[in-house]
Amino acid sequence: MTTPIEHFHPFVPAGGVGSRLWPLSRADAPKFLLDLTGSGSSLLRATYDRLAPLSGGRVMVVTGRTHAPAVSAQLPELAAADLVLEPSPKDSAAAIGLACMLLLRRDPEAIVGSFAADHVIQPAAAFQEVVREAVAAAASGRIVTIGIPPTSPATGFGYIRAGAPLGLEAAPHALQVEEFVEKPDEETARAYVAGGDYTWNAGMFVAPAALLLAHLRRSEPELHAGLAEIADAWGTLAQDEVVDRVWPGLPKTAIDYAVAEPAAAAGDVAMVPATFTWDDVGDFAAIHRLNRVDPAGDSDVAVLGENTRVLADASSGVVVSDTGRLVALIGVEDIVVVDTPDALLVTTREHAQRVKDAVNSLKRSGDTDVL
Amino acid sequence: MTTPIEHFHPFVPAGGVGSRLWPLSRADAPKFLLDLTGSGSSLLRATYDRLAPLSGGRVMVVTGRTHAPAVSAQLPELAAADLVLEPSPKDSAAAIGLACMLLLRRDPEAIVGSFAADHVIQPAAAFQEVVREAVAAAASGRIVTIGIPPTSPATGFGYIRAGAPLGLEAAPHALQVEEFVEKPDEETARAYVAGGDYTWNAGMFVAPAALLLAHLRRSEPELHAGLAEIADAWGTLAQDEVVDRVWPGLPKTAIDYAVAEPAAAAGDVAMVPATFTWDDVGDFAAIHRLNRVDPAGDSDVAVLGENTRVLADASSGVVVSDTGRLVALIGVEDIVVVDTPDALLVTTREHAQRVKDAVNSLKRSGDTDVL
Repeated sequence: MTTPIEHFHPFVPAGGVGSRLWPLSRADAPKFLLDLTGSGSSLLRATYDRLAPLSGGRVMVVTGRTHAPAVSAQLPELAAADLVLEPSPKDSAAAIGLACMLLLRRDPEAIVGSFAADHVIQPAAAFQEVVREAVAAAASGRIVTIGIPPTSPATGFGYIRAGAPLGLEAAPHALQVEEFVEKPDEETARAYVAGGDYTWNAGMFVAPAALLLAHLRRSEPELHAGLAEIADAWGTLAQDEVVDRVWPGLPKTAIDYAVAEPAAAAGDVAMVPATFTWDDVGDFAAIHRLNRVDPAGDSDVAVLGENTRVLADASSGVVVSDTGRLVALIGVEDIVVVDTPDALLVTTREHAQRVKDAVNSLKRSGDTDVL
Repeated sequence: MTTPIEHFHPFVPAGGVGSRLWPLSRADAPKFLLDLTGSGSSLLRATYDRLAPLSGGRVMVVTGRTHAPAVSAQLPELAAADLVLEPSPKDSAAAIGLACMLLLRRDPEAIVGSFAADHVIQPAAAFQEVVREAVAAAASGRIVTIGIPPTSPATGFGYIRAGAPLGLEAAPHALQVEEFVEKPDEETARAYVAGGDYTWNAGMFVAPAALLLAHLRRSEPELHAGLAEIADAWGTLAQDEVVDRVWPGLPKTAIDYAVAEPAAAAGDVAMVPATFTWDDVGDFAAIHRLNRVDPAGDSDVAVLGENTRVLADASSGVVVSDTGRLVALIGVEDIVVVDTPDALLVTTREHAQRVKDAVNSLKRSGDTDVL
């Protein structure tokens, strides 16, 4: 059994539709609310369940106002005080900064952890041990990111360049972070992977709330001041008025620019490498990876969806269906079929990344009823 | 305007589900009842409309009992006496033989014409002129088939080998038929097409009813006797009793074996070449050919179905939908997507012929609810 970690306060920024997973993901059914692994749990629910044992059951969720009912329904044990609602999307620095301020008010020694709501991680025990080490490293006064050892020269992620071991007894695998680097081209990515000093930046980090906010104040003073005004009013009769007045004017920026990169330049960032498998379920090629191929079938077709009947002849790929219809595939290789009541997508694993372009194209053409 | 041809009695054997067009075609919605060209008319309706002007408006339809309501609804002007219902499928010789007997009783000088219910022919005027010539040739005491000049070395059709011109004044293009040949392999088909003596056998023919039945009596005496017993009872109080007693025991055979081939061997068959375009809509590759590509789209996707929204990105092929759903195609070439309320097919134009195997596989697995 995992024991709770003192002063550790995890939170989950749950935003982003995940439009590369359209038409499965929708504005009102974003990726984090979906079960994409056939496990019976949504990605958010699984994220919550991985974190709760580390913090005595309390996990804060920061999400959009429109998702409050669905989040509450999926997490019935979530305390009202742990459901932080954004009136509108303001990128990650605002959401994370507000969570840090609220948790710092709850616990002046708070070590916070930020974990995306829509990643798949296995096994939970390995994840928890890595977080435990990251918290220990953070207690030494650092922002500690969890790096994912790369399994391919991916060009869709930022990378973390690590340096020397920190030599911390409670965090033996923690390394100094030299720098965060942007998404590379493929040649650069190959060099990163071959070199061994680079891990993928999955956006997971653990840090003393006070340290993180000090960096935020330095690099984004306007954002910090606005969030502080909101945090001061939080839980008072003035909350709604202040949020509605201040939030819309907050600068939109990512936590990477506002905190991670300047903190790394200041020598304040460490990294603990992951010992678990990690997938950001970035597109339908990932859905194929994460779902078992029907062992009874004579073809390599992964199926996601209950009561889905698939007839596959000389075909491979993935079928996602929530309509109960029979899906017949004949002579189609590496196909992706996503079957929903009002929209049908047919593409290939190779083109799975282009689904986002289709969503943008639907936006432009005014077909927003299916988004 | 086309004037009616004296003693000419066309009929339409309307049978066959067209399982290569599943899931569009179903047991209760066979191919001939469908609009496969986006014209607004079913194939049966269009066939009827091409024939009716040649016979003063009377066209006989021979179909399965279960299709009677749909056929009557599509052909409201069809006289009850012209709707001949088979209690069960017995292949083409029984259906055609019965139609000939009933028409011979109506007109002892009947020249009948048999035309499939599920072919696409353009333009109607050219078709009518060819039929007129075929009737003239048939009046000389021959079974006259209409040959389709081949546009490719197709291996899915039988071929007709023609010989010398008949030299008939009223049928200047009519040629003697030397033989009917079975579906060839591709090499043989290439030789047929290159040689110039061969046309496709589309199963359309015109003949004196008495001559056709004489051949049937010679080659299939049992079938002929059974049909004669049914025809004698037709229109009397005994009709149902006799049909239900005799029909189930009739031999199952194709008109090609029962009449066309022996008649050709006897020198009784002629051929008039078609001057119209012809398509048997044999599979979804044909649906692609017969339906206009959306001129507004930037991709080569043909769409069949009302109110179908298709978003195509770097894709080509055909979408058939009657669900009103948005269909998004991304990076799929020569794709075939058939979208119905209870079944979805994804294949390619190349594999379109294999749809029949999928239907057989569904029969074996007991998934008959979608057939």
